[in-house]
Amino acid sequence: MSVTGKLALIAGGGAVPVEVARYLKASGRAYCVLRLQGLSDLELNHHPGHDVGLGDFAHMFDLLAQESCQSVCMVGYVQRPDFNTMARDAGGAEHLPVIQAAGRGGDDSLLRQVARMFEAKGYAIEGAHEANPQLLIGHGLQAGPAPVPEAADDMAEAVRIANVIGALDIGQAVVVAGKITLAVEAQEGTDAMIRRVQALPDALKGALVNRKGILAKVAKPIQDLRLDMPTIGVSTVETASAAGLHGIVGQVGKLLIVDKAATFAAAERLGVFIYGFDDTDGNSH
Amino acid sequence: MSVTGKLALIAGGGAVPVEVARYLKASGRAYCVLRLQGLSDLELNHHPGHDVGLGDFAHMFDLLAQESCQSVCMVGYVQRPDFNTMARDAGGAEHLPVIQAAGRGGDDSLLRQVARMFEAKGYAIEGAHEANPQLLIGHGLQAGPAPVPEAADDMAEAVRIANVIGALDIGQAVVVAGKITLAVEAQEGTDAMIRRVQALPDALKGALVNRKGILAKVAKPIQDLRLDMPTIGVSTVETASAAGLHGIVGQVGKLLIVDKAATFAAAERLGVFIYGFDDTDGNSH
Repeated sequence: MSVTGKLALIAGGGAVPVEVARYLKASGRAYCVLRLQGLSDLELNHHPGHDVGLGDFAHMFDLLAQESCQSVCMVGYVQRPDFNTMARDAGGAEHLPVIQAAGRGGDDSLLRQVARMFEAKGYAIEGAHEANPQLLIGHGLQAGPAPVPEAADDMAEAVRIANVIGALDIGQAVVVAGKITLAVEAQEGTDAMIRRVQALPDALKGALVNRKGILAKVAKPIQDLRLDMPTIGVSTVETASAAGLHGIVGQVGKLLIVDKAATFAAAERLGVFIYGFDDTDGNSH
Repeated sequence: MSVTGKLALIAGGGAVPVEVARYLKASGRAYCVLRLQGLSDLELNHHPGHDVGLGDFAHMFDLLAQESCQSVCMVGYVQRPDFNTMARDAGGAEHLPVIQAAGRGGDDSLLRQVARMFEAKGYAIEGAHEANPQLLIGHGLQAGPAPVPEAADDMAEAVRIANVIGALDIGQAVVVAGKITLAVEAQEGTDAMIRRVQALPDALKGALVNRKGILAKVAKPIQDLRLDMPTIGVSTVETASAAGLHGIVGQVGKLLIVDKAATFAAAERLGVFIYGFDDTDGNSH
């Protein structure tokens, strides 16, 4: 989408909303932050904005109108609430039942319903990677040692398997080592998936001194990247290193790297590469 | 295959070799047991047979000839050995390097190479389910409460996803609840996969008093069922119950149930159903 007009950053927890806010400020774009109470990072108090409750949609709509915003970017961690007990204003009372019903189809479905609600009010939805393109992985080797041939083979296979897993709407990430799929992420999350590789027999996995295997993290085709982007950061690199992996691969334009400087520094320090894969890489194998 | 001639049961660890041996004895078929030292159950000492070392292929070939066996059934747990240090006789020295090389392609590949070695000597390979057909799951509800409609829907989806995961040569088992894939087995094993469902948010999974979700365990298309059958038992039922699942589904003729009486009793006691699925079930959804 074209990035224009004043942006409302609806900020959940974690570092990504902070990085988006910093970029918006530095780039001179008009913006305000709607800080989700109890979730958003304290640094966001130093940006223009307002505190809002997660279920207070009437309040949010008032603020968006008052601030003359044209776009909304929803970013950061929000744990799925208990819809039966969560606080809400009149707007929440109107919209939460539909959002709750959509949530039975999974988090993706829930987020799409929230987005539709803002779109119905005339706001464009903007992804974190659109609000701050610097968060995106680039093409080729981003950090760490260059892939050895075995790692390059596993990289292509890991991307292939991860894309099939994503097409089934199962998860975003897999670990492949020696062409064998060691672990597949479903609902447990990427870090938990990587950690269980450590418990596998030595014959299958690598080690710190003799690395083996690749983490691929890709977007599901069904995934709306404006609402939910695959993301890695320092902890991903640390977990991948502890699991004895060679490296981490994402698809160009479809992976966010939180705190890129620190993440790349961890990759260099631990000897784990980060690689941005695209179709030209696929053709070389 | 047609089950004829004297059978040599090459017995690793666990209960399945014991159940095969008991059946062979009860059915009056000619057989002997080659007990893998340090692995096979002590009960097998009371069957006709011999102790053999895992790497002593010349000794095994001598025994097969001496016993006038026509078929070989390899069954039971064998942890992948350290090929560089394991004991071997002259037959092992000849065959183990090829087996080790095949093992780089995974356990399936390793077992197929072992089977080819016996076939090259003129022995037919017989599966545990052929040597003892009573181990197989039947069609329809086998034990536990009848599936509610929600469970029937999850059952069809779990079988579908498990078959795709199998076709990718990733694993045999998945857990699906509310049409969402909660967990996928790769190299960690089925019980570990089920256990991590317990750690997922309550919104996704079921509970003891409000069950939700299905474990599907199926064979990979690439899997040689003579060498490696999907298997469940009491611990599978117990783990599935602790994860709040409705039931367990396998494909008719492609799932072994170890200690069927105890496994069905656990299913009844814990309220977890066991269901044998075939194409007629698939068409009803």
